[in-house]
Amino acid sequence: TILARLLGELEPGQEAASRVMPVHRDLDGKRVVITAGPTREALDPVRYLSNHSSGKMGYALAAACVERGASVTLVSGPVTLSTPPGVERIEVTSAVEMLTAVESCMPCDLFIGCAAVADYRAAAVSEHKLKKTGDAGGLTLELVRNPDIVATIAARADRPFTVGFAAETQSLETHAGSKLERKRLDLIVANDVSLEGVGFGGDDNAATLLWREREGTRHHALPRQPKTALANAIVDHIADRLR
Amino acid sequence: TILARLLGELEPGQEAASRVMPVHRDLDGKRVVITAGPTREALDPVRYLSNHSSGKMGYALAAACVERGASVTLVSGPVTLSTPPGVERIEVTSAVEMLTAVESCMPCDLFIGCAAVADYRAAAVSEHKLKKTGDAGGLTLELVRNPDIVATIAARADRPFTVGFAAETQSLETHAGSKLERKRLDLIVANDVSLEGVGFGGDDNAATLLWREREGTRHHALPRQPKTALANAIVDHIADRLR
Repeated sequence: TILARLLGELEPGQEAASRVMPVHRDLDGKRVVITAGPTREALDPVRYLSNHSSGKMGYALAAACVERGASVTLVSGPVTLSTPPGVERIEVTSAVEMLTAVESCMPCDLFIGCAAVADYRAAAVSEHKLKKTGDAGGLTLELVRNPDIVATIAARADRPFTVGFAAETQSLETHAGSKLERKRLDLIVANDVSLEGVGFGGDDNAATLLWREREGTRHHALPRQPKTALANAIVDHIADRLR
Repeated sequence: TILARLLGELEPGQEAASRVMPVHRDLDGKRVVITAGPTREALDPVRYLSNHSSGKMGYALAAACVERGASVTLVSGPVTLSTPPGVERIEVTSAVEMLTAVESCMPCDLFIGCAAVADYRAAAVSEHKLKKTGDAGGLTLELVRNPDIVATIAARADRPFTVGFAAETQSLETHAGSKLERKRLDLIVANDVSLEGVGFGGDDNAATLLWREREGTRHHALPRQPKTALANAIVDHIADRLR
């Protein structure tokens, strides 16, 4: 894998810099669990609520961790990506299923919650397809809060080093900083999904890492780059803090 | 195309019977518009409401019509299928966009509304990502009715021969018969999406065709078969009635 990487088994368009980036085995022997992709929340047998997550970022993180010697389980919502070599993949649909799958993988050393978990699901899932009412009026959909997967894992007695993601369209660092505190995460990766060409669906992304130190919240900005390179930069940072 | 078909340029698993099915040019010179796939209704920049339609049935119908000499425009929601050779494809996301695209293609000779159009969209689409409220409570989503694309086309002064689809999980023929009347369709293709292995996502489907004659509503059952073969059987029936 290392040789293949140095010899340039990379997609066109990926930066030359990443071709010669040395691969450290700095996660040797670590158990890593990563969530990726969207979740889908059924309303009835045919309809669902979901989001635009492609899963690319989570899959790139899984590949980066395996290359560094970790044993990686990827808990993935419905995406069209193939599993990176050496990664164990568990497929799930809803947030509740995703949490159950993640909990079945505990304890571990590092948990990265990269999935775009739906915040809400239908209060009641209809067994049959919902029929429209006769009139041309609206419909009120009652939703209930889904479990917060990263916060649940971060609250465990045997908690791993826990990394969350924050996809925002405004006040990026304020919202991400508040999530870091409220969910008791070790690190949060914040990205602005309203920027052109980055975030959901695209191949590039930019991010700001936030974490707490004694003197307060620290920030580190990672510029726009392919998601594979960004995944390596994020894992560099995590591996430093895991030691 | 006819030669290729006869020589067996068919996917494995497709029934031998369809290899030798004669291709009639019974739609020569006809303008056909077909909708396919799901629609996605945005709730905010990242979240949406959608359904499990794969688009396979609509794409198979488009291919079947082109082979019979029609000029075909496929108005498609987000799917991962490639456009059949000779078909013009217009990509749309929401139901409102789909209706606008279909109306821009009028007049035509035959309209097949095969898309699984979302019945509802959000009453207001948030420009920014919706923030969860602080408490662990629920969310009430206000939805409004989407335009009914087949009924809108069937109500035009210059209406084409209009075919609708009814995906049901119960009381198939009652619901489909009532849609046929209410939407003033020429033909409705009813299928039971609760049956194992057919309908949404799968490669097979079974259907019942319903149409009106002087003596009342007529039914014709088409048994379970690959969607490509089923598309041909449906187009056989439509072509007979178009003449």
